[in-house]
Amino acid sequence: MALIVQKYGGSSVGTLDRIRLVASKVIQTREQGHDVVVVVSAMQGETDRLIQLANTLVTEPDPREYDVLVATGEQVSMSLLAMALHDKGCSARSFNSLQIGIMTDLMHTKARILDVKTDKIKHELSRGNVVVIAGFQGVNAQGDITTLGRGGSDTSAVALAAALKADECQIYTDVEGVYTTDPRLIPEASVLTHISFEEMLEMASLGAKVLQMRSVELASKHNLPIRVLSTFSDAPGTLVTLEENVIQKRLVSGIAFSREEAIISLSGVPNRAGIEGLILNRVSEQNIEIDMIAQNATDKETTDFTFTLQRKDYANTLKIIEQLAKELDAVYVKSNANVAKLSLVGIGMRSHSGVATTMFKALGDHDINIQMITTSEIKISVVIDEEKLELGVRGVHEAFELDKLSSEKKPAFLEV
Amino acid sequence: MALIVQKYGGSSVGTLDRIRLVASKVIQTREQGHDVVVVVSAMQGETDRLIQLANTLVTEPDPREYDVLVATGEQVSMSLLAMALHDKGCSARSFNSLQIGIMTDLMHTKARILDVKTDKIKHELSRGNVVVIAGFQGVNAQGDITTLGRGGSDTSAVALAAALKADECQIYTDVEGVYTTDPRLIPEASVLTHISFEEMLEMASLGAKVLQMRSVELASKHNLPIRVLSTFSDAPGTLVTLEENVIQKRLVSGIAFSREEAIISLSGVPNRAGIEGLILNRVSEQNIEIDMIAQNATDKETTDFTFTLQRKDYANTLKIIEQLAKELDAVYVKSNANVAKLSLVGIGMRSHSGVATTMFKALGDHDINIQMITTSEIKISVVIDEEKLELGVRGVHEAFELDKLSSEKKPAFLEV
Repeated sequence: MALIVQKYGGSSVGTLDRIRLVASKVIQTREQGHDVVVVVSAMQGETDRLIQLANTLVTEPDPREYDVLVATGEQVSMSLLAMALHDKGCSARSFNSLQIGIMTDLMHTKARILDVKTDKIKHELSRGNVVVIAGFQGVNAQGDITTLGRGGSDTSAVALAAALKADECQIYTDVEGVYTTDPRLIPEASVLTHISFEEMLEMASLGAKVLQMRSVELASKHNLPIRVLSTFSDAPGTLVTLEENVIQKRLVSGIAFSREEAIISLSGVPNRAGIEGLILNRVSEQNIEIDMIAQNATDKETTDFTFTLQRKDYANTLKIIEQLAKELDAVYVKSNANVAKLSLVGIGMRSHSGVATTMFKALGDHDINIQMITTSEIKISVVIDEEKLELGVRGVHEAFELDKLSSEKKPAFLEV
Repeated sequence: MALIVQKYGGSSVGTLDRIRLVASKVIQTREQGHDVVVVVSAMQGETDRLIQLANTLVTEPDPREYDVLVATGEQVSMSLLAMALHDKGCSARSFNSLQIGIMTDLMHTKARILDVKTDKIKHELSRGNVVVIAGFQGVNAQGDITTLGRGGSDTSAVALAAALKADECQIYTDVEGVYTTDPRLIPEASVLTHISFEEMLEMASLGAKVLQMRSVELASKHNLPIRVLSTFSDAPGTLVTLEENVIQKRLVSGIAFSREEAIISLSGVPNRAGIEGLILNRVSEQNIEIDMIAQNATDKETTDFTFTLQRKDYANTLKIIEQLAKELDAVYVKSNANVAKLSLVGIGMRSHSGVATTMFKALGDHDINIQMITTSEIKISVVIDEEKLELGVRGVHEAFELDKLSSEKKPAFLEV
C-alpha cells in the first residue's frame, strides 16, 4: 500500500461531469489499496471570474483581500469533489489551507510554502478517508490566507507529498504527459516515459507549461517522483524523477520554444567593465524583463551585446537602447521584433559534444538563420525568425528522432 | 466613541456598486468616531448558485461538504467589501469564521453559535482597522466549517455584538425598518421607531422576514439593541430593544400575516385524554408540520379540534384525517384550503382588554368571517378566507390607526 498525492487541475474539475470523472479516478486508486490525498485547483474560469470581480470593483485590489477572494475558488472545487466521492460511496473530507496548516511566508499573491502540517491529514487517512485539499492557497504566520500564484496548485501537491513522504505525486492534467515538443505544433511529438528533474526545469522555464517550475524544484529537492498524466485517459504519463532513475537514456529529451520574442543587438559597444550593467539598468528601470543575453568580444576595444525580451516590450526598449547608443558614441543598433526562441534540452548533451552540431545542421538544412545562441549545461537555445519556428522545431525534432522516443500508441492531444 | 456592529444582507452587497455604497456607509460610521465591525452575507443569488451546483452534482450533498461550499459566498463578499474600503482609504481586514473562531455546535447546515472569540477582532480594532467578518458561517470543535441556515448572518451579527459587548447591532437591509404591516399589501403601513424584543419575535415568527428569529432571541437574551435600517436611505430605521426602553407606548405594534394556509377541523371528537396526541401523531408521522391549534369543548362527551397547516400539505393531511375520522366513529371533518392567518401583535394588549374586541369588530364590519382564533399574551391570530386577507389587514390597520404611528415622512418600500 502506497501513499499517493494526486493533483487535478482546473480543466480536470472544470465541469460537474468532470468532477464526477475525477471522483472515479480517485476511487480507482483507492481500490488499488492506496491511501489518497487529492489536491484540487479551482474550476476552470473561476479564478479569472473572481479576479475580474476584484478588478472591476477597484483599480488596485488590496493584496491580502485579493488572496481571501481568489482562495474561494479552490474551496468550491474541493467541497464538490468530496461530495462526488461521497455520492459514489467513498468517504472523503475536504480541507482548506487554514484547516490543514499549509504555512507560507507573508507575501501575498505569490507566497512560498514554508511548512505543511500533516497531523490532520494523517489522522483522516488512518480513519480510511480520502483527504481533499485546496491547492494554490496557504496561511501565513499571522493567520492570513495567502495564495501561491498561477499554477500554484502543482506546488501545493508537491509540498504536501514531500511533507507526507508520499510515494508519488501525480499531476493530472488535460495532456498525456510531457511531450518532446508541443504536439499542437508538431503532431509527431512523443510522450516521454521519463524525464529528469533538471530537464523538466529547463523545459518548464522555456515555456512548456505542463508543470509549475517551483513544484519541480521542490520535488527535485525532496527527491519526490512526479508523474504527469491525463485525467481523460489511462495512459501512464511521464515520470519526472532523478537522473539516475531515468532508464531510457537518450541524448536529448525535448524541444521547448516561445513565440512573441524580440531581439535587440548593440554592435561596437566600448569593451569596458560595467558597460553591460549600464545597458541592462536602463531597461530594467522601466520594469522591462529581459530574457536571453549573449555577448561577443569582436576585438579589444569594442564588443557586441545582444539580448531578447518579450515582444510587447520591444518598442519601449528600442527607444531606450537607441538613446543609449547615441550616448555611447559609434554604437550600432540592430533589432528584430519577429523572432522566436527554440531550445533543445537533454541531460545527454553533457557528455556528447555532437548535439549542437546536429542541431545547427538541422536548422541550416532548412535554411534557417540563427540570430543568437546561448547554452547551459543541458540546454541549447537559439533565436530564429518566428515565421520559421515550426520548420525549425520540426527539423530538430526529426534530426534527433524524437518522434520515435515513445514506443506507446500516439496519444491524442487535447486543446487547452 | 461606541462600538457598532453592522450587518449588510445579500441585497445590500448584491452588486459591486452596492458594495461601494456599503463601504461609504461604513466609513460614515467610522468618521463619527465609532469602532466598526461589519458582518456580510453572500452577494444576492450567490448562495443559491452554490446550492444549485451541489444539487446538480449529486442528489444528496454531504452536509459537511455542503457547508464548506456555501461558506465561500460570504468569503467572496467580505473580501470585496474590504477591498472597497481600502480603495476609499479606510484600513480594513476581512476574516472568515475559522480565522475569528465563531464556534458552533456540530450540526451542519443549521448550526448554533456556542461562543465567539474576540481576541483577533479587538486586536484589529485597536490597530484602527475596520473588521469585516463573514456572516452565516461558523466552525465546530472539530475545526470543520458549519453554516447557520438561511438568514444566519443576522445571528452572526448579534452573536458578535453580544460577545464584543457592542453598543448597538445595526442590521442593514433593503427595507426602511420594521413596518406595522407589509407595505406591499398596505401602502399606508408605517415604520415603527421602536419595537420590543417580544413583539419582534412574534412578528418574525408570523412571517415578517426582516430579522431571523434566532437573532432576536439572542439579542433579547443579551439585552443588545438591534437597529433595523435601510442601506439605501439615511432614515433612522427601527430600534428593537427591551420593552421598558420603548418610549412610544401603544396598544399594538403591527399586523403580521401569512398566506397559503389551510385549516382542518374535526367535530365530535371523543373528549378523552390523549385524543389530541393521537390526531397530531398521525400527521407528524408524515413529516407534516402543523401551525395553529385550537380546541373547543362542546359538551362533556365530545370536543372540536381545529388546526392549520401549510397549504402544500393539505391534500395529504386531509386523507390522513378522514381515515382517522372513520376510526373515531361519528367524527365530522370540515376543511378549507384557501385561508390565511392574520395576527395582531402588541405588548399593550396585555393590560388592555379591548384589543380583541376592536380587532374582531373591524373584521366583522368588513363582513369577514373568523374561522379560528388563537391568542398568546401579546398576540391575537385569526384564520380567515385568503381572498379577504387584504381587506382584513387594511380594516384592522385602520381600526388601530397604525398608519399614524410613525411621524416620519412615508418611506419608499423597495421590492425584494
